[in-house]
Formats: sequence, C-alpha cells, structure tokens
Amino acid sequence: MGKGKQFRRSSAPPAAADSTALGSPYWLFGVHPVEAALRNPRRRTHRLLHTAEAAAHHAGLLQLAKTRPEGAPRLEPVDRDALARLLPPGAVHQGLALLAEPLPAVDIYEVCDGLAEAGPAGLLVLDQVTDPHNVGAILRSAAAFGARAVICTERHAAAETGTLAKAASGALELVPLVAVTNLARALETIKEAGVWCVGLAAEADQAIADADLAARTAIVLGAEGGGLRRLTREHCDLLVRLPTAGALAHLNVSNAAAVALYELARQQRAASPPLHPSTG
Amino acid sequence: MGKGKQFRRSSAPPAAADSTALGSPYWLFGVHPVEAALRNPRRRTHRLLHTAEAAAHHAGLLQLAKTRPEGAPRLEPVDRDALARLLPPGAVHQGLALLAEPLPAVDIYEVCDGLAEAGPAGLLVLDQVTDPHNVGAILRSAAAFGARAVICTERHAAAETGTLAKAASGALELVPLVAVTNLARALETIKEAGVWCVGLAAEADQAIADADLAARTAIVLGAEGGGLRRLTREHCDLLVRLPTAGALAHLNVSNAAAVALYELARQQRAASPPLHPSTG
Repeated sequence: MGKGKQFRRSSAPPAAADSTALGSPYWLFGVHPVEAALRNPRRRTHRLLHTAEAAAHHAGLLQLAKTRPEGAPRLEPVDRDALARLLPPGAVHQGLALLAEPLPAVDIYEVCDGLAEAGPAGLLVLDQVTDPHNVGAILRSAAAFGARAVICTERHAAAETGTLAKAASGALELVPLVAVTNLARALETIKEAGVWCVGLAAEADQAIADADLAARTAIVLGAEGGGLRRLTREHCDLLVRLPTAGALAHLNVSNAAAVALYELARQQRAASPPLHPSTG
Repeated sequence: MGKGKQFRRSSAPPAAADSTALGSPYWLFGVHPVEAALRNPRRRTHRLLHTAEAAAHHAGLLQLAKTRPEGAPRLEPVDRDALARLLPPGAVHQGLALLAEPLPAVDIYEVCDGLAEAGPAGLLVLDQVTDPHNVGAILRSAAAFGARAVICTERHAAAETGTLAKAASGALELVPLVAVTNLARALETIKEAGVWCVGLAAEADQAIADADLAARTAIVLGAEGGGLRRLTREHCDLLVRLPTAGALAHLNVSNAAAVALYELARQQRAASPPLHPSTG
C-alpha cells in the first residue's frame, strides 16, 4: 500500500494556539474515565475525590494518581453523598471523581496530517449529534475499531463533560474529539487529504456493504430525527444506507456509528489481511 | 430455502398462563414509547398525562388515545413539574406519560414456533445484561434489523420499565422481550428449533464475518465486563469475536448487538437477495 500524499495546512491557525486548553475544569467520574485520564499525559488534573470503599477496591488507581509524572492531583477522601452532590443526578461514579482541565483542542489539520502517514483509516463526522451518551458511546466504538478521530460541530454538539467521558469509558483520552466551526468546510479539508466521505442516509439507494470503503474513509452521521443537513449531504462523496427495515428502521445514532465502523473494518481487513502482530 | 421442521413444546406451561400480565402498572414516557404503546393492541392502558404544550404538538396522539379500540386511557392535563415528579430523575418525557400494564409474557416456545414458519431469522440472547438503556437500545436494533425476539434471564436482567421503553423508542411493543428462568436450557430449546447459537466472546478465534450466519441464528451476548458465563458459553454452537483491537477493544453491549445483527442481516441478504417488495 503506497504512502499517501502529505497533507499541508493552508489557511489554518498556528498549531500553538490549539495546545491551550479552553473552558473550565470539570468532574470526570467512574473507574474507567478516571483511570484513562490519569494515564493520559495530555490531561491536567487537580483533585481526586474517593470514597473509602473505592480506595479499598482501587488502590492501584490511587497509587497511579500519586505517582503521575505530569503532576499528581490532590487526593481527598469523601463520603458517597458528598460525591453524588457534585455530579449530575444518577451519575454512576463508583466512588471516584477527578477534577480535570478539558483536553487541549486538536484541530482538523493535525488529524489530516496524521492520516498521511497511515494506511487505510477511518474517521467519524457527526452533524449536530447533541446527546453526550451517544457521543461518548461513539468515541468508545471509534477506539475499539481504530478510527483516528471523531469530528463534530462546535455548536449544537455534545460538550466535553463527565457524562460524555463516562459513556466513552476512557476513549475520550484516546480518540481526539475535534470541534469545527463549519462542517461543510471540514469535509472539504478531509477530502483534500485523500479521505472518501460517506454519509449515512436512510433514503440512499446504495447499501453500505455494496460501497467500497477499503481506502481512507470518513463516515458522516446526522442527528436522530433530522439526519444529515442538506449542506452536509452535498459535501459527501457518496450516501449509503444501513440494511434496516420495518416500522422502526432507524438505529440509535451510536449503534449506527458502530455498524458503519464495523463495515469499514470488515472491508479494510478483507482488502489487506493483518500481518502477524508484532510483540512488545 | 426449505421450510424448517415444526417445533413443538414439550414440558412447557400451558399458553393460556402466559397471556396474563404480571407485575404492576408503570409509567411509559416520551412520544415514541407512548405512541407505540397506544398502537399496540396487546397493551392495556389506564391514564395518559399530558402537558398543554404536548397536547398542542401531539394532537394526533391524543386523538389516537381517545379512539383506541382496546379501551381509551383517561386523558389528564398536568404541568411539567407534576409530570417530572412521577418519573425517574432526568427522564426525557416530552410532556407525555402513559400508565400501562406490563406486556403479556411471551414464552420461548411461542418464539420457536413462530420461527418454524419463517425463512432465515435472527434472535438475540442476553446473558445478564442489566442496564435498561442498553436493553432498550438492543430492542430498537432488533426491530430495525428484523430480529424475532430478545431473550433474557429473569434474574440479573433489566425489568420492563419506562426507562427501558424510552431507550427502545417504541420497539418494546414490536419485539418480544422473553424472560427465561434458565438460560442454558433456553439455548437448548432454541437449538432444537433449528437455530444456530453463536456467542460473542472477545477471546474467540473466529471473526464474526468468517462464520456462516446465513441460516437461522441466535446471537448470544454477555454483560460488559463479565462477558458470557461459562455455562452459557458451553451451550453455544460457536463463539466468534468482533474485529476490534487496541486498549479499549470492548464495545458497549448495545453497540456489539447492533454490529452482530448487522452482520447477520448482511450475510442473510447476500445469501438470498430480497424479492421486489409486495405492496399493500
């Protein structure tokens, strides 16, 4: 497989501006999100609240926090009720909450530059998907299927929150969530980097299994109900549909994303069977 | 494709016992679940609470309730706060809540009898999947991909609740959720009905795309974390894995179910391309 052409930013803002975290510190909660954040060198952390029970069950995690090379958060024992009051109602915190800075922003040009080095690779593009549980689950599927980034709109999108991070189960630390001002322009940028932009649309003629997704591909998904906006649709190279039918033919958006990522992985694997995995 | 052998119940309880609803009435909420329940002739309904805003936006739904042949629920205007107090914290009720009886139980023998008449068909079997959001989303995917039933354990499973129904977005009324006492025995019953039982397990050697799922297939999924229990695993005909990799190789269970149902639909479609759809 040939090396892709190197993608160069043109009118992009300087990369330095992107490494500054925006927004305010927020609470991550639950074992997986907290552990993944502690292991992420790009994450700045302030306070780790833990119940006595969590400290007993997750001694390794507390040790990890204390010895964190990037700076240890302050460890603070709390009771369950005090912890619950800091978090959204019903949050499954498992006795752990970490006050952390939002991740430094990653821009679309960095993502495209990274692709140039790689073989076939997947991206996900979300057109105004607002539910943090869905966006979190999509990040998790993106990590499991090796997608390089999840690209979303700055407005009408799910913000980086503890709820999103919980649904992502650690994947927020692994897969960049890239917010863009103008999605149509971002799609053009992605296409210039040699990526095939494939939109999921219920009314498309072609089934996803009949489309050729073996090269670099971005899957573009719209919100439930509305689907892709007209302008987004027009900037896709191709529209495909999932093979669903019946009175309830629409999948939940995170399930649709998982299915599309699976089909991408299936085709890419069929096109280039994996070598023996390297060890170590 | 030949007609499958007719499956007969052996030591099953009489069917009449299954048509009695068990449990207490509960609140369904949100537009899709409420509308689907009103359209389901098997659903007994008592009270439909609606805000003034919902009544204005969903006049057709209120009309549907009033003219329901199976008996109309009592329509009761309420304010948003009163409605919210009846429902779980954070419930997205959209101004509507319907007090309804649980659905009449469907037993595993009815499901198997129905399969004998059909061509290739999918079932889902859940081994102790407890999260109602996940089970709801799985029902929704089952409806979209035409699966015949979702089979779960009676204990350590998600109960039929408003939260589950909301995540199912109406699919709870379309796809039977069948609770069984003993999952290993249920798998044997399913296998006797000529269904191939395929378990999803991360450590399996075979990828799901390489397994032959073109005939009648049940996909068996375990809880996140634990996976399939040993006994469940031993009663599967085959174990397969999803083509995931990396530090976070596990999908959310509802995403795993959607991917497996997709692969089933893809293979069954490839094995017998659909005829022109009949009209009317």
